[in-house]
Amino acid sequence: MTYCVGLKVRDGIVLIADTRTNAGLDNIAVFRKLHILNHPNQRVIALATAGNLAVSQAVISYLAEGVTLDGHDEPLTLETTPSMFVTAQLVGKAIREVYRQDGEALEQSGGFDVQMLLAGQIAGRSVRLYQVYSAGNFIEATTDTPYLQIGEHKYGKPILDRAVQYETSLEDALKLSLISMDSTMRSNLGVGMPIDTLVYRDGALEPEIELRITDEDPYFTSLRNSWSDALREAHLAIPAPPYWYGK
Amino acid sequence: MTYCVGLKVRDGIVLIADTRTNAGLDNIAVFRKLHILNHPNQRVIALATAGNLAVSQAVISYLAEGVTLDGHDEPLTLETTPSMFVTAQLVGKAIREVYRQDGEALEQSGGFDVQMLLAGQIAGRSVRLYQVYSAGNFIEATTDTPYLQIGEHKYGKPILDRAVQYETSLEDALKLSLISMDSTMRSNLGVGMPIDTLVYRDGALEPEIELRITDEDPYFTSLRNSWSDALREAHLAIPAPPYWYGK
Repeated sequence: MTYCVGLKVRDGIVLIADTRTNAGLDNIAVFRKLHILNHPNQRVIALATAGNLAVSQAVISYLAEGVTLDGHDEPLTLETTPSMFVTAQLVGKAIREVYRQDGEALEQSGGFDVQMLLAGQIAGRSVRLYQVYSAGNFIEATTDTPYLQIGEHKYGKPILDRAVQYETSLEDALKLSLISMDSTMRSNLGVGMPIDTLVYRDGALEPEIELRITDEDPYFTSLRNSWSDALREAHLAIPAPPYWYGK
Repeated sequence: MTYCVGLKVRDGIVLIADTRTNAGLDNIAVFRKLHILNHPNQRVIALATAGNLAVSQAVISYLAEGVTLDGHDEPLTLETTPSMFVTAQLVGKAIREVYRQDGEALEQSGGFDVQMLLAGQIAGRSVRLYQVYSAGNFIEATTDTPYLQIGEHKYGKPILDRAVQYETSLEDALKLSLISMDSTMRSNLGVGMPIDTLVYRDGALEPEIELRITDEDPYFTSLRNSWSDALREAHLAIPAPPYWYGK
């Protein structure tokens, strides 16, 4: 399993991904799922992947080698796309290339499953956050729904639903992403530490924070404990149901 | 979709179920999913159902008409089983009967999907809470894991994971179930009001609370608001990530 969440707020983007992969509970490994291309002053492009690891890796390889979009003469890579929109098209095309090659075999053994979050900015253009589906099509985060999730998304969704807004600061966006990740890790063993983290501020054209948060990270440990304590206190502060009165 | 959660704590059992069924988002209806048999001083048996509604209703009908367990001569109903364990076997057998009749056709059109929570007490016997699977086998809630969920279980699991213990009071168990239900309804439109509620105290041999909680219920409305406020305050109380320091 995997959990990745991306938040696009007014000031920029937060994108985090766990690093656990498993083929059954008895075959667990650490793989990087958050890939960051950083060309200072030119472009920062991040790709978080969920689903079949072989498919994800093949897509990343295609993107590095170059993919030719319909209507273009030359192949493009993540280093040469003119905009984030074209980058999303390129990622979608790469997924379709992998499907063309491996799709039939994979459909016969469990399905062709890959999802990606694509975030970043190219000099002179807007910051963007996209979710690309296994069909190669994609959606973009909006001011109404400023977050996108891939992988094991349900456990960590309630806090996002309630607390994340477009006006949320980057600091709070990172904190909320980590709370969402903690809820997911707590309920699904297939999602695990360490957590790869990117914070990107609109216009910076280089990452503001690029960090692997490990089990020993004192802030994350304290966040986990504070959040658990706060949830307990929160439910204790709610009065008991009144349905017993008058019985 | 459906969400039902059962908690078995030291003092008894809480079992709640939503009432929304849907065949697509454009075909939504209210159906009771929590069925309670109440023979004061003799037995209280509750059954909450999730999955295919036709299958659930067929199982309930079989249980009312009587099912003959392997090794028994006479059919049993929920009114005549000698123990909750045998009742769980009976529910499992009824599911298998429906599978025998409809399973092949259903497997060809989406699958045979039914899950049930069975809770209750028979005079002179222990309180029990079981989860019965579509294969007809079942598990029981324990002091280590005193809750069982069926249907759309993920959104409402984090609060249960963190707060529910065997020593939790019945009042708190009901409150926590309702928080768990609220989280689920907030994130999945397929789960909706009203909420059917049963609270049963060990030894009572009649329901302590048997209630349909509607949209207008002032306590549930205040719980929803308090919980949302508390989650927001809880994350606000956690300090900002320190990863910016020293940059």
